[in-house]
Amino acid sequence: MNKTELLALLQPEIEVIDDTMRREFASINNPLLQEVINYAVFNGGKRIRPLLTLLAARLCAFCKMPEGIAEEDELTPPVDLYRLAMVFEFLHAASLLHDDVIDHASQRRGKPSANTIWDNTHVILAGDFLHASAMTLAGTIGDSKTLDMIGSATTSMIDAEFLQMQTAVDRNLSEENYFAVLRGKTGALIGSACEVGAYFTGASPEQQAALRTYGDALGLAFQVVDDLLDYQGDPEKTGKAVGNDLVEGKMTLPLIHAIENAPDDEKKFVMDLLQDEPHKRHDHIQKVHNFIEKHNGFTYSKQGAETLVEAALESLDIFKDCQAKKTLIGLTGYVLTREK
Amino acid sequence: MNKTELLALLQPEIEVIDDTMRREFASINNPLLQEVINYAVFNGGKRIRPLLTLLAARLCAFCKMPEGIAEEDELTPPVDLYRLAMVFEFLHAASLLHDDVIDHASQRRGKPSANTIWDNTHVILAGDFLHASAMTLAGTIGDSKTLDMIGSATTSMIDAEFLQMQTAVDRNLSEENYFAVLRGKTGALIGSACEVGAYFTGASPEQQAALRTYGDALGLAFQVVDDLLDYQGDPEKTGKAVGNDLVEGKMTLPLIHAIENAPDDEKKFVMDLLQDEPHKRHDHIQKVHNFIEKHNGFTYSKQGAETLVEAALESLDIFKDCQAKKTLIGLTGYVLTREK
Repeated sequence: MNKTELLALLQPEIEVIDDTMRREFASINNPLLQEVINYAVFNGGKRIRPLLTLLAARLCAFCKMPEGIAEEDELTPPVDLYRLAMVFEFLHAASLLHDDVIDHASQRRGKPSANTIWDNTHVILAGDFLHASAMTLAGTIGDSKTLDMIGSATTSMIDAEFLQMQTAVDRNLSEENYFAVLRGKTGALIGSACEVGAYFTGASPEQQAALRTYGDALGLAFQVVDDLLDYQGDPEKTGKAVGNDLVEGKMTLPLIHAIENAPDDEKKFVMDLLQDEPHKRHDHIQKVHNFIEKHNGFTYSKQGAETLVEAALESLDIFKDCQAKKTLIGLTGYVLTREK
Repeated sequence: MNKTELLALLQPEIEVIDDTMRREFASINNPLLQEVINYAVFNGGKRIRPLLTLLAARLCAFCKMPEGIAEEDELTPPVDLYRLAMVFEFLHAASLLHDDVIDHASQRRGKPSANTIWDNTHVILAGDFLHASAMTLAGTIGDSKTLDMIGSATTSMIDAEFLQMQTAVDRNLSEENYFAVLRGKTGALIGSACEVGAYFTGASPEQQAALRTYGDALGLAFQVVDDLLDYQGDPEKTGKAVGNDLVEGKMTLPLIHAIENAPDDEKKFVMDLLQDEPHKRHDHIQKVHNFIEKHNGFTYSKQGAETLVEAALESLDIFKDCQAKKTLIGLTGYVLTREK
């Protein structure tokens, strides 16, 4: 399944998700709060988390049907499934709003970020509102186990943010920490989006676990590729400057691996640079790039992403072949080949 | 019941609430996150919200017992009730953490506020963590209705914050808006703390509604007195400078009422001052104080608080006399006579 086919398949679902969110926001009392939230949520996001909830649910619903009884496209997902899927987009948007305040970000997906249009008060509170709504929906559409899964994903994200801040200060060089941050910040919510979709359809614990593994691995692979694109991407396509992570002193897998494998005399230059001012690192992006290349940081990361994708694919083996499964497989391909 | 008796009765409950929270925080993975949260929560708060949950539950549990069968002090509240009560302290603490970031506050209850010790990232995320934990606990200890009550209280708080920001910019003079902000910002969570306590014990809808009314009215009275103390309190006792609200341009009931009742030529001075720089208002606190006094703003507000307390007391009429009821009555007296 190529990218065009994948998008054509997903587009109608994205539209239903967007309509569901629009209807939900229409009942917000305060017009300004409504405006901030609409701006933050309808900003060109790919809706990957709610899509995964829908796909996981569809896959498990299909696998429950006796052979030959139902065609997959006859299974109409209940309205509540879309509302539950939307919860993951709310949580994602809430965390982006708070991140933008924290980072004093000026741009989000090529548009001015919410905190440049309204003040921090409005933006922090809009995030809190989305968060409270998400948790309430999670536990009223779903049950207490659903809420617990989603609540754990949220607290894992915060835990990982604390770990990341610490590793940034320490210029931490451990691959283990790198993956621990990724698992919490990206894997947990995506894994939970898949698991909740499966759980909602009454899937078996084995199926739930398999889809959680798929989501975790897909999320991690996505982030590893993101960190690669930061060094190797085309700024025209990614919309971000090359070497941004390096300038910010953010330790990602390509650099961590290269430092681990370089002889002392070669890595001294990089270690000194990491202790230096950000603008010094900016001046030496090409040199660091060559250093990573020479010590296989890029190859190693690319292989890491491929291994994660293999794990994601393998976890789908227990499911019957169907359109939803093909789409989930297609998404792993998209993660590996994306350029932005 | 005087204040000393009231505190003696409540102190053992406060200790159980604090122990319950300490145990909950002990399982937080990240040591720094744990530190920020402990600092924010154990800062001398009065635990009024969880206490109200416990008292409401105790009152309703007693009223369910057949006459003469049980003594009230034999009713041991289940551990889960304390954990549910704790949710309200989490939500309160989360909103204070975000408020302190928003207001760039330097002090909270006479100690440096969390945002002066750690940076905004840590403080915003610690608030998010408390919020996520609170909502998860609400829907796993309680049921989906419990979660919905607590979620609605949280979104009402945010709605009211937006309304308050707008009324501050507009220098809004309507008593209706003043109370709408109070109901959302203070009444909703306190009313919900009482209602949830009643609901948890399986109280009748009438009893739940009565305790919600009690909490709403108590919360509003508390805030009206707070706004009075801002003008009339002893800074030695309140720990706040006199006239702080005026300097910040915050329109509270004493001033709103006085402006409504003063002749045009007398109120012109105040209206001009409200459009002026904060330091100008600081220079004229005494003059505004006299203006409010002359036009009955203080008397009117005091009567407003008394009327609210009467409504709170009246809502308790349907319950049998017992220690919990006496304590709830005692709390209304404390609200009216407090000096800090």
